[in-house]
Amino acid sequence: MVARNAFYAQSGGVTAVINASACGVIEEARRHKSTIARVYAGRDGIIGALTEDLIDTSKESAATIAGLRYTPGGAFGSCRYKLKSFEQSEAQYRRLIDVFRAHDIGYFFYNGGNDSMDTCNKVSAISRKLGYPVACIGVPKTVDNDLVLTDNCPGFGSVAKYVAVSIREAGMDVASMARTSTKVFVLEVMGRHAGWITAACGLASEHAGQPPHILLLPEMKFDEPKFLARVAATVKKWGYCTIAVSEGLRNADGSFLSETGLKDAFGHAQLGGVAPVVAQLVKDRLGYKYHWAVADYLQRAARHIASKTDVEQAYAVGREAVRYAVAGKTAVMAAIKRTSNRPYRWKIEPVPLSKVANHEKMMPRRFISADGFHITQACRDYLSPLIAGNDTPPYRNGLPAYPVLKNQAVKRKLTESFTI
Amino acid sequence: MVARNAFYAQSGGVTAVINASACGVIEEARRHKSTIARVYAGRDGIIGALTEDLIDTSKESAATIAGLRYTPGGAFGSCRYKLKSFEQSEAQYRRLIDVFRAHDIGYFFYNGGNDSMDTCNKVSAISRKLGYPVACIGVPKTVDNDLVLTDNCPGFGSVAKYVAVSIREAGMDVASMARTSTKVFVLEVMGRHAGWITAACGLASEHAGQPPHILLLPEMKFDEPKFLARVAATVKKWGYCTIAVSEGLRNADGSFLSETGLKDAFGHAQLGGVAPVVAQLVKDRLGYKYHWAVADYLQRAARHIASKTDVEQAYAVGREAVRYAVAGKTAVMAAIKRTSNRPYRWKIEPVPLSKVANHEKMMPRRFISADGFHITQACRDYLSPLIAGNDTPPYRNGLPAYPVLKNQAVKRKLTESFTI
Repeated sequence: MVARNAFYAQSGGVTAVINASACGVIEEARRHKSTIARVYAGRDGIIGALTEDLIDTSKESAATIAGLRYTPGGAFGSCRYKLKSFEQSEAQYRRLIDVFRAHDIGYFFYNGGNDSMDTCNKVSAISRKLGYPVACIGVPKTVDNDLVLTDNCPGFGSVAKYVAVSIREAGMDVASMARTSTKVFVLEVMGRHAGWITAACGLASEHAGQPPHILLLPEMKFDEPKFLARVAATVKKWGYCTIAVSEGLRNADGSFLSETGLKDAFGHAQLGGVAPVVAQLVKDRLGYKYHWAVADYLQRAARHIASKTDVEQAYAVGREAVRYAVAGKTAVMAAIKRTSNRPYRWKIEPVPLSKVANHEKMMPRRFISADGFHITQACRDYLSPLIAGNDTPPYRNGLPAYPVLKNQAVKRKLTESFTI
Repeated sequence: MVARNAFYAQSGGVTAVINASACGVIEEARRHKSTIARVYAGRDGIIGALTEDLIDTSKESAATIAGLRYTPGGAFGSCRYKLKSFEQSEAQYRRLIDVFRAHDIGYFFYNGGNDSMDTCNKVSAISRKLGYPVACIGVPKTVDNDLVLTDNCPGFGSVAKYVAVSIREAGMDVASMARTSTKVFVLEVMGRHAGWITAACGLASEHAGQPPHILLLPEMKFDEPKFLARVAATVKKWGYCTIAVSEGLRNADGSFLSETGLKDAFGHAQLGGVAPVVAQLVKDRLGYKYHWAVADYLQRAARHIASKTDVEQAYAVGREAVRYAVAGKTAVMAAIKRTSNRPYRWKIEPVPLSKVANHEKMMPRRFISADGFHITQACRDYLSPLIAGNDTPPYRNGLPAYPVLKNQAVKRKLTESFTI
């Protein structure tokens, strides 16, 4: 068998550990030189393939590639660019195959979420249809943890750890000063549809009264009177109240709370920021002094406090994806299967992309407490192993020392350019 | 000499390392049992003294006290409560001395910022005036780093490290996706008057183009056209722009930007949140997609990423404060003196409280770049050692395991109560 090249692309919002998956893909590919000649990465994701802007990862040293394991962000660039059906996006699919053919690419590793798994599946089918079959393997990634058929998504465990650590620490700060100062603290976290990240905040509360006291999950419609009553009761009992709120919290009418509150000086709706809306509501109705924080990108980039489990799983899905390709598989995703809860044990297994695409894993109701404001023990049992262990990056001058890649371009071979 | 008791209180906004100072005070006091019998802590700071609500730290084990070294927040509670002049606050001062006398307190350790150093100084003088002389020693603490006569303030180095790490990580995230997604990211940090924390963000930028690209310091009046031109030029050159902004940024007319922008659904000014104002301005004028984060308490509570230098200095000022008291000193603060920059060396020395109180250390102009948007090498030389080293707390279940104290009350001796 003649070795062919591989194409790897990062897709959608990046995470603290997506580069660990890249590391797994590239390091494993380097162990199969007789099958995989070089790994090319798309500059800015799939756009790099469409514009024939490929990065030759073989130009990077083993040490640099090893450094990807502890580097946040997307080392080759990512993008928000969705290929639709073959009928709607035929030009894109044809171009993709043209580029693959020009660069002798026989393996496609797509590192992303739901949409990317769908695209990866379509590329597998279309490449056969166009007479240039490519082995297409999905590498899961999303902080939202909303992919089905995998125990969890690489990227989620680290953001989960970040938010749980952060609200524990901030909660202790608030507790110290509540008598004369801030009584209510609101932390806004990501997760527009699924409440997994908000739920992870709940891990910080291990005994009665320990922050956070209230979780506002997107799965539960916001019930203002019930919420305010709970805040008042919490302040009365514990002296203060700490709240984690999902950016995707909705009113009973389905509108986002973040879009209903704030206006800028020109009267435009202020996008983003449900935390200030919730905090202001508490102030207006209950009169408590408040503070609020919006973690935004800090949470999904926080490699310094990454979960060791998450880093290991992110690496493993990349590594196994290559093994699947080498073994002749296509149209599968490297999924995490939990084989034991205590102790937490897991393995990687292939699942069909067709079964992953276009599904969304929401929090099951049994993970949410009866009153809707916290998580259950079942949820803790599920989440707790995902934040276990620390995987500390190297430091220089007091800061994490994250390597920068050369990202040297592969010489173009096609004469036609392609406009995105 | 008969051993007498000591009183220790935390004051004002807490930090990631104020408990390390408490640890230094209590551990050192336990080494001088012939001079200091017990250390009582004020529950919720000085309010605990006024209301005779004292905590007996001798009831805590050596292991628990040692654990204070790595516990964020204020372990005994802090408060925002300022004693004014003797004439204005005579009742408070007299009550304080009554409580001290009732509990045989001969040493007062006040762990706080500017106002607390002023109070500590006044208590020293007034205690003599009222015929009950107490040794009053200031233990510096403030994330704002605005105390004079000390190289820096314990608490600052850790928040500096947190913001520099955070903006480095978030900047890498933004860089990954700027081509098709967010082009401008704004991180809001603390520091209402002095720009030290905003300046610390600048440490993350170690080479041209590395985030953060723009610092909006409170020392520089906000110049909207100049700022927008710089944002546009940065996006043109590097593809994206990362901005750190001080919560205290002001317009040319002296008004806070945070108070001029957002209104809630009822038309009330939204307090706090300069980041969304700056982000929205960029969007309105330049059209770039943005994201923003407000770190708020997360930054000053982030013990998980504390600076080792900061922890050591916080401990040392507590320890030395006790040594000063034992040596018969009063009305002094334990200050940090930098004796060498490379390698960074420091020692603790006493400075008169009268020279510390009522002064504020602002960023010198020579620490700010000519254009006002970044820091100079002199500033880096000053800041860099303060974030050096990691001091990682112990973890349990994937989260920092912070001890909780018993905080057992000392039996009251006075019959009169005192209303705050």
